[in-house]
Amino acid sequence: MNLILLFEGDFVEADMVRLDQRRFEHITRILKCGLGDKVKVGRLDGNLGIGVITEISENELSMRVKLDKFPAPAAPITLICALPRPKTLKKVVNAAVSAGVKDIYFIESWKVDKSYWTSPLVKPDGLREHVLLALEQGCDTVMPNIQFKRRFKPFVEDELSGIMEDSLGLTAHPQSDHICPAHLEAPVTLCIGPEGGFTDYEVELLEKHGCRPVHLGVRPLRTEFAVAAFIGRLI
Amino acid sequence: MNLILLFEGDFVEADMVRLDQRRFEHITRILKCGLGDKVKVGRLDGNLGIGVITEISENELSMRVKLDKFPAPAAPITLICALPRPKTLKKVVNAAVSAGVKDIYFIESWKVDKSYWTSPLVKPDGLREHVLLALEQGCDTVMPNIQFKRRFKPFVEDELSGIMEDSLGLTAHPQSDHICPAHLEAPVTLCIGPEGGFTDYEVELLEKHGCRPVHLGVRPLRTEFAVAAFIGRLI
Repeated sequence: MNLILLFEGDFVEADMVRLDQRRFEHITRILKCGLGDKVKVGRLDGNLGIGVITEISENELSMRVKLDKFPAPAAPITLICALPRPKTLKKVVNAAVSAGVKDIYFIESWKVDKSYWTSPLVKPDGLREHVLLALEQGCDTVMPNIQFKRRFKPFVEDELSGIMEDSLGLTAHPQSDHICPAHLEAPVTLCIGPEGGFTDYEVELLEKHGCRPVHLGVRPLRTEFAVAAFIGRLI
Repeated sequence: MNLILLFEGDFVEADMVRLDQRRFEHITRILKCGLGDKVKVGRLDGNLGIGVITEISENELSMRVKLDKFPAPAAPITLICALPRPKTLKKVVNAAVSAGVKDIYFIESWKVDKSYWTSPLVKPDGLREHVLLALEQGCDTVMPNIQFKRRFKPFVEDELSGIMEDSLGLTAHPQSDHICPAHLEAPVTLCIGPEGGFTDYEVELLEKHGCRPVHLGVRPLRTEFAVAAFIGRLI
């Protein structure tokens, strides 16, 4: 936790919060902070700043907060990722959200196991806890927009162009002859396939709709590391 | 497992292997291969190729193998990473080894918890199982060289220049003013700090010995994702 995230319900006055449980434990036990100490805080979907501890009891604490710093700008990347297995889904969310990606679509693909769609993580708010952890990791406050798209062809044919707008479209594809461009400083829409990759049909349909296949070496990476590697290369 | 790794002891003839247990289960249950089917194989520290299943019993199988492809060239990156907690150490090894990094040093740093050095993973061959999994992930056969260096200052002052040779030295440091260069196609020595980062003293000593601080955005990433992101950017 590189940042203590604050929520609407934490505020007892305009500049005063009261925290208990996980955040109380973290501040007192892990950060070993006491009365008068300063803690890095941020209000969900709001500013970052500093909290000064004004009161500590056995299981809660109060902080006076000054929230005067804008969060860092979003990474200019829209991530479209074949839905991974639930364990990997959490890691992909951490990799992307902690790096500042704000638009994420998890989509169907031929090699996505049907059972992945029944995971509680795919339900509304199912990823909320993991998203908040990733924001705390990345010292960010701005909730990403995460959507699930259960049908590949309608998504690519009917929705992709609206999502891409004027961004550069790329599909991660180890068999491509072209290495991924680097340090673009411009908006990118990045498609990452499932374990085993997109099928040829899927790669071709994505290309037809503006996402050029590119590679990052011939070695297949775990999905979460592919996501981190492409983001690191593109920003 | 994108590749079945073969070991000296598997060979019953020059071009014939016999496999049981984990690899047998993977080939028959996960890949659902039977008699005559082809499997991607590679000999540890040797060539890659194809194995054709010639015999299957209840708990072992034989394959005739043709190993005629060189493994992909190594990533031109030497990774120097502050020793992470054991759970993260495994992930860092997977991120680096599956991406083709062949020289890895885990080092002491002020914010490395002393208990991490007592992990069984730090013992000789303690990481072997995880390294093999990462080679299988990355379709590679070449064992990396992984070393542990328990003292920071002597390592940087006495060993670093010999390790770096003529490579470009970089230290990942979110507070740097300079963004990490991209797509270098040249040897790099990359230093990654612990959770919480290198201390100012450490960053300065590394810089004095040739490793320039660079950032990849202001957001602190989990160590394994920082490793993946920097490798993806640099190759």
